[in-house]
Amino acid sequence: MEIKKVTERIQNDLEELARFTATPGNGCTRLPFTKEARGAVEYIKKVMTEAGLLVKEDAAGNVFGILEGEDTKRPCVMMGSHYDSVINGGNFDGIAGVACAIEVARQLQERNVPMKRSFVAAGFCDEEGTRFGTGFFGSGAILGKWDIESCRKFKDTAGVSVYEAMQEYGLNPERIKEAEWKPGSIGCFIEAHVEQGPVLAAKGTELGLVDCIVGIQRYMVTVKGRADHAGTTPMDMRADAMEMASGAIFGLPAWAREYEDGTVATVGYISAKPGGINIVAEEVQFSVDIRSRNSRHIDEIAQKLKEALEHAAENCGGSYEMEQKLKIRPLHLSEELLAVMERACKDRGYSYQRMPSGAGHDTLKIGQTIPSVMVFVPSKDGRSHCPVEWSEYVDLAKAAVLGADLIETLIREEEA
Amino acid sequence: MEIKKVTERIQNDLEELARFTATPGNGCTRLPFTKEARGAVEYIKKVMTEAGLLVKEDAAGNVFGILEGEDTKRPCVMMGSHYDSVINGGNFDGIAGVACAIEVARQLQERNVPMKRSFVAAGFCDEEGTRFGTGFFGSGAILGKWDIESCRKFKDTAGVSVYEAMQEYGLNPERIKEAEWKPGSIGCFIEAHVEQGPVLAAKGTELGLVDCIVGIQRYMVTVKGRADHAGTTPMDMRADAMEMASGAIFGLPAWAREYEDGTVATVGYISAKPGGINIVAEEVQFSVDIRSRNSRHIDEIAQKLKEALEHAAENCGGSYEMEQKLKIRPLHLSEELLAVMERACKDRGYSYQRMPSGAGHDTLKIGQTIPSVMVFVPSKDGRSHCPVEWSEYVDLAKAAVLGADLIETLIREEEA
Repeated sequence: MEIKKVTERIQNDLEELARFTATPGNGCTRLPFTKEARGAVEYIKKVMTEAGLLVKEDAAGNVFGILEGEDTKRPCVMMGSHYDSVINGGNFDGIAGVACAIEVARQLQERNVPMKRSFVAAGFCDEEGTRFGTGFFGSGAILGKWDIESCRKFKDTAGVSVYEAMQEYGLNPERIKEAEWKPGSIGCFIEAHVEQGPVLAAKGTELGLVDCIVGIQRYMVTVKGRADHAGTTPMDMRADAMEMASGAIFGLPAWAREYEDGTVATVGYISAKPGGINIVAEEVQFSVDIRSRNSRHIDEIAQKLKEALEHAAENCGGSYEMEQKLKIRPLHLSEELLAVMERACKDRGYSYQRMPSGAGHDTLKIGQTIPSVMVFVPSKDGRSHCPVEWSEYVDLAKAAVLGADLIETLIREEEA
Repeated sequence: MEIKKVTERIQNDLEELARFTATPGNGCTRLPFTKEARGAVEYIKKVMTEAGLLVKEDAAGNVFGILEGEDTKRPCVMMGSHYDSVINGGNFDGIAGVACAIEVARQLQERNVPMKRSFVAAGFCDEEGTRFGTGFFGSGAILGKWDIESCRKFKDTAGVSVYEAMQEYGLNPERIKEAEWKPGSIGCFIEAHVEQGPVLAAKGTELGLVDCIVGIQRYMVTVKGRADHAGTTPMDMRADAMEMASGAIFGLPAWAREYEDGTVATVGYISAKPGGINIVAEEVQFSVDIRSRNSRHIDEIAQKLKEALEHAAENCGGSYEMEQKLKIRPLHLSEELLAVMERACKDRGYSYQRMPSGAGHDTLKIGQTIPSVMVFVPSKDGRSHCPVEWSEYVDLAKAAVLGADLIETLIREEEA
């Protein structure tokens, strides 16, 4: 197996798939249940067929290429990612992991691995949630997390429900439950994905072995004070919502840095009411997003935030609310699978590092119940979800080789 | 002179004037060159006439009631304020000072003060600047600060220029320069005004003698960093505009408090771009308003702000701009006039305190060239520019009595 050949096949597939965008010339826009999604799925089916795989499209719009094992009753090994994109996104996020999975199927055959059990290359529908605000649709559906009611409930900005969009796309939403895989039928799951962050590229590391998808807590904080004239109200007679909020906002980055374990905290949104230059703020609202591989660290930062707000509100005579908008616990990935991948990296001479994933992925859903692992390839300048998103095809080829190594090892070890 | 009678006259005038609003039942909305402004001016003319004054409306829409002195060539004493309001403002801001000035004219006559020189009660047009975004129109015009060109330049949100609005109102903008008073023709200026802040009411003080209108510096600060994924970008690889901005915003109130001289600093507006919960802020923009009686203190706070931003930008790899939007130097009012008012307060047994004005007023314009002083009456709960704005009529009566005392003293001293 030459890395050059693998690189060329992945490059060819990704360049072909890049055509299925609603915004040609301005990145990839491939929303679920659209003609761009259909185009991509048909292309994926074609190359899966050419790769000798048995092709299936399920009731949720997922596409699978199955390399059948001798015993189809035994849990399969599944590898894949999603084929949808955000609006004006890049040509790698998600789809690169689908291309890698198909490439792994090719390699397993070229290596003549004795397939005791099946390998399944998967392309999932609607991981991003861009159109319906949900996300993890396809990967959730294979775990039985979607039903007819939820398909009717979620709608896009034009008022079209998932249910209606599926019908228009040629799927029968009444059969959504048929997309579920029987518990125990998937033995383990592997996802190759672009890092979408700057770490690997900055360090010049070839691959990232993801040992954890970080936990997330999100809050919308509302601090309430009193609107006063900015000129006529002395400092000690104010209940300035901005002053009350500023201590917490200022403290946050330092609290995250204390842990030195990749914990991050971000205030991305802020607004002040009434918002006049010459009016003391009556209300300040800001978002807080805290992520860590260690859920205790997230809890501690949230607690410090609460204490800072409490203290400021008491001092200034105001009040605050901290509404939790999201809470996801960290997902620790399979140490067993990681150990195999580490060995394979060493054998191949690929530079690698263990790292957390700061973003969610299909693995976040699937890994809740199925032993899972992820491999990251470097993202140029850490850029993602934008047209300039870029990863080197040769790095993706290495991820595919590593995936094939992992699966070959799993199958041969089981055989032994 | 009974305070009860004075109180009743002022109450009657202000209750009548409150009818001239575009938003009955929801505070006073009396924009310049509207039928509400015309109604108020006609009422003012009527009571000025009834008070025995010679009435004049000038080319700028100002209205004057003149109590002619023996020598009309000598510099007059002028007292007044503005008759326009903000949108959904209160029934006291500005107009209370006009009612007080007319009341002073009544008292001077009732006291039989030998008027060696003229007393002029003034109602100025468009101090607030609500309609055309300018303000100080009438008080500026008597100083010759407006011309035909500037009348054409400033427009309201409907695209109507000051020039056109004046014509529609029955004024000839081509004659705007005729509103100018000859240099030296106004000997001194007195303005009674509601405090618009909480100080007098909180302390239970009857009157505020304003010794200074604070200086103001306003900035729009723009901090620039880089948009990154809030999950995948480690803390030490970010250029977080929010983090860079937060130190300066957090520091500001403490820097103002250090001076213990009433210096105030306010961040009333803030926004973050792109503003997503899960995106590190690329740009944060916020306003800074700094006011002090001491311009050195304003300069020092602006310098600390600059240094904090400089330091943060350097640490985080970002940049910043600090655009100065306004710079007004503190205006120190006439110590001579203040001394007379202080004596009068003591004689009358009125509680008073010297204080700065944190907001601008017609006096800010007029006081630049003419010896001026202001007297503040308490604002209930410090509220202003809103329908619940309230001052006690008896406090306004005391301000009018004090105004009459001041003018009587000036005239009698000069005579002696």
